[in-house]
Amino acid sequence: MSNPEKFKFLKESIRNVPDFPKKGIQFKDITTALKIPAVFKSTVNHIAEYYKTKGITKVVAIESRGFIVGGALAAKLEAGFVPVRKKGKLPAETYSRTYSLEYGEDTLEIHKDALEKDDIVLLHDDLLATGGTTVASVDLIKNFQIKNIFINYIVELDFLNGRGLIGNEYDIYSLVHF
Amino acid sequence: MSNPEKFKFLKESIRNVPDFPKKGIQFKDITTALKIPAVFKSTVNHIAEYYKTKGITKVVAIESRGFIVGGALAAKLEAGFVPVRKKGKLPAETYSRTYSLEYGEDTLEIHKDALEKDDIVLLHDDLLATGGTTVASVDLIKNFQIKNIFINYIVELDFLNGRGLIGNEYDIYSLVHF
Repeated sequence: MSNPEKFKFLKESIRNVPDFPKKGIQFKDITTALKIPAVFKSTVNHIAEYYKTKGITKVVAIESRGFIVGGALAAKLEAGFVPVRKKGKLPAETYSRTYSLEYGEDTLEIHKDALEKDDIVLLHDDLLATGGTTVASVDLIKNFQIKNIFINYIVELDFLNGRGLIGNEYDIYSLVHF
Repeated sequence: MSNPEKFKFLKESIRNVPDFPKKGIQFKDITTALKIPAVFKSTVNHIAEYYKTKGITKVVAIESRGFIVGGALAAKLEAGFVPVRKKGKLPAETYSRTYSLEYGEDTLEIHKDALEKDDIVLLHDDLLATGGTTVASVDLIKNFQIKNIFINYIVELDFLNGRGLIGNEYDIYSLVHF
């Protein structure tokens, strides 16, 4: 768990948007944080600092908000970058995983040549909610029999208990909790 | 224009996927380049080097492939990061711009509080094709009466003459040309 005071600068720059994308949801908008140079820089540096001794070889980031800090982390950690995308967006052969949403389902994909068995992966997304997207992404990564996987978010919505769904076997690190 | 030999390492790691997303299109797939740590690092460093004396305050990147290297550039240049997204994805008040595609149209949006009049913007996307997306994004950025705008791509498809559509008034820099 992170120290709440340490990331106060980040938490305070995140905007709450009521009723987005639908009524009753309090959307945590990170764009107000990312646009501030000092906040963007500190966020990336803090995450990179946490993982710099882990031997990360690939940052796997989830479309599309996960790409922003995911790209910055890959550069900082001198790792490769691998996207997990919605169905039909990746042009070559993919592994595919369908998972349930509140209404209906969604499918995520990863290129079959994206990872190798010696890789140590940092899976990054901007926000942990129910954990469904993460579990699907972890399942995609498991196809490659990689060495190890670490999971990182900027924001974690504690009351939705995404950690419960993901399980205890992974090292999960979030900067800010609501 | 870039020196073709200088970015041979990058060009050679980009995969050509025939008939994606539809018959007759030769899709330039950068995922095979981004996943190689040394290629990702060099790509980001070369672009950042080119712009480091320009006083960039915000990197504006276009959803969603533009977010990957766009995020890395914002961190490297110590700038803020601002996303241009498809209609309905940004949660707060936006400027909106609809533009024509080969079939039908598309709409891009930017938050109304994303930029300020003193900003110097680096607009980044992964690829320049016909230039329609770039022109719509430049129009969005013009709402803010910022100081200056630079435009960068990883890949430019010369035969589609996107530069012709964008016009001569902007500094456009692409690493790799096809």
